[in-house]
Amino acid sequence: MKLKPLADRVVVKPLEEEEKTPGGIILPDTAKEKSQRGQVMAVGPGRLDERGERVPLEVRVDDLVLYGKYAGTEIKIDGQEYLILRESDILAVIEK
Amino acid sequence: MKLKPLADRVVVKPLEEEEKTPGGIILPDTAKEKSQRGQVMAVGPGRLDERGERVPLEVRVDDLVLYGKYAGTEIKIDGQEYLILRESDILAVIEK
Amino acid sequence: MKLKPLADRVVVKPLEEEEKTPGGIILPDTAKEKSQRGQVMAVGPGRLDERGERVPLEVRVDDLVLYGKYAGTEIKIDGQEYLILRESDILAVIEK
Amino acid sequence: MKLKPLADRVVVKPLEEEEKTPGGIILPDTAKEKSQRGQVMAVGPGRLDERGERVPLEVRVDDLVLYGKYAGTEIKIDGQEYLILRESDILAVIEK
Amino acid sequence: MKLKPLADRVVVKPLEEEEKTPGGIILPDTAKEKSQRGQVMAVGPGRLDERGERVPLEVRVDDLVLYGKYAGTEIKIDGQEYLILRESDILAVIEK
Amino acid sequence: MKLKPLADRVVVKPLEEEEKTPGGIILPDTAKEKSQRGQVMAVGPGRLDERGERVPLEVRVDDLVLYGKYAGTEIKIDGQEYLILRESDILAVIEK
Amino acid sequence: MKLKPLADRVVVKPLEEEEKTPGGIILPDTAKEKSQRGQVMAVGPGRLDERGERVPLEVRVDDLVLYGKYAGTEIKIDGQEYLILRESDILAVIEK
Repeated sequence: MKLKPLADRVVVKPLEEEEKTPGGIILPDTAKEKSQRGQVMAVGPGRLDERGERVPLEVRVDDLVLYGKYAGTEIKIDGQEYLILRESDILAVIEK
Repeated sequence: MKLKPLADRVVVKPLEEEEKTPGGIILPDTAKEKSQRGQVMAVGPGRLDERGERVPLEVRVDDLVLYGKYAGTEIKIDGQEYLILRESDILAVIEK
Repeated sequence: MKLKPLADRVVVKPLEEEEKTPGGIILPDTAKEKSQRGQVMAVGPGRLDERGERVPLEVRVDDLVLYGKYAGTEIKIDGQEYLILRESDILAVIEK
Repeated sequence: MKLKPLADRVVVKPLEEEEKTPGGIILPDTAKEKSQRGQVMAVGPGRLDERGERVPLEVRVDDLVLYGKYAGTEIKIDGQEYLILRESDILAVIEK
Repeated sequence: MKLKPLADRVVVKPLEEEEKTPGGIILPDTAKEKSQRGQVMAVGPGRLDERGERVPLEVRVDDLVLYGKYAGTEIKIDGQEYLILRESDILAVIEK
Repeated sequence: MKLKPLADRVVVKPLEEEEKTPGGIILPDTAKEKSQRGQVMAVGPGRLDERGERVPLEVRVDDLVLYGKYAGTEIKIDGQEYLILRESDILAVIEK
Repeated sequence: MKLKPLADRVVVKPLEEEEKTPGGIILPDTAKEKSQRGQVMAVGPGRLDERGERVPLEVRVDDLVLYGKYAGTEIKIDGQEYLILRESDILAVIEK
């Protein structure tokens, strides 16, 4: 199954946060912090501006991005969690 | 009975969520998650932009779409539940 | 008495919801669901757009329309309940 | 004393609601419903639009109008209650 | 001390409300209603519109004006209470 | 240390309110009212309008200004309290 | 790892607040005030204005800036706390 986001939306696959503390203790799921990092899986065509033209997105497929803890809508597809965000909810691109 | 949505509204028929857990247990209605997937049954003519022109919708009849859990207004017609959403409440189109 | 709605407002006469359950039991008033369907009795001249021109309404007198449960303002005239809505509160027209 | 409302404001004198029930019982003041009908006593010159021009009002002095239960600001002048509303709070004109 | 209000602001000196009931009883301070009437002491140069031009105010110094009970900011200068309001918080001018 | 406010912001040094009651009693700190008067220490270059041009500020360095009790952000620099406000939070200039 | 903020966002490294009271007492972490000062580490390309052009930022990398106590989103990277703010959340630049 493939997703085609609408307007200025972006589909992101959240990255698992570190499962060990700096001291090497393995954390249970409930103690892990909510991920704020993810990989862009798909981008929309951009929103329409006032002149009726599409505004292309700054982020690209495969970009690693940072976002707020409560941004976007969680969607579960085939057992995998995804996040659908507006581009304006993305704070920064992490350069590799 | 047929519905003609106004402006940028879309009539969606929610898809039943899986009734079995991965282990094969049949779920009762109250344990099923609220659907976030549905099929587009009808689309409006589009909202008017600032120049007084209609902005045609990106989604089409028969598209399979994803939306937030609390998006739109539920309407019951002839015993069938429908959802009427603004197009901006639709997150993505699911490609078949 | 006749009402002339202002701007983009619409006067709607709510339709009585079914008074019987599918099994044929007659429902008391307090168990009936709030109507979300009504007949358009009067429409306003349309709101003024940014260029100072009237935007005519999509709905017409006699249209059967769908609206949200808590939309509009209830008005009682000569013992009959009416609803005054903005056109943007109307979700769809029901085709007969 | 005379009031000159500013911009798109309207001074309305609320009409007393019926003091008898359909069965002829005279209602005490506390059981009367809040009036939603009134007579226009004065209208403002209209708000300024984006081009700096006045938008004249649709309602006229002496019009009988309908408004929401909690619309506007109540003002007491010489012992008489008035309501000052924006024209956009007026739902409809009642034709006589 | 003199005040020069900014943009579309107005300095108003609230009028003392009647200190006697219609029956002639003198009211203590705590039983007096909050004033909604005042005299304009100073007006600002007007806000800037979208074209960068000042929109001159409708009210003038010495006008007697009506305003909502909770409008504006109270300021005490040399022991005297004043109210600084935006012109849009002024409901009407009282003609003398 | 010197502050350069951004856009339409203004740095204000609040004036100490009178420490004596009219009867000559010296007030402890906790009984003093929050200051609503201050001296402008620095002004920003102005916000950008829709045409991309700076809108210069009305207030100037050294102006004595009035503002609401809860306006702006308090900042402590080298032990001295300052307030950073948007110009739109300033109610009036006090003429000396 | 390097961050490329989107639109009008800015990455800031908060400065540690003084760890001693004026009297020389070393403060524990929980008694320290939340920092409102930080150093700009990266700036975005600017937001798009209505004409579709980028509005370049006023702040530059290495600027020392002041911001409100609850502004922005905290992000932890490689054990170091950063703050991602919109430029409009920055109150002033501190001149060195």
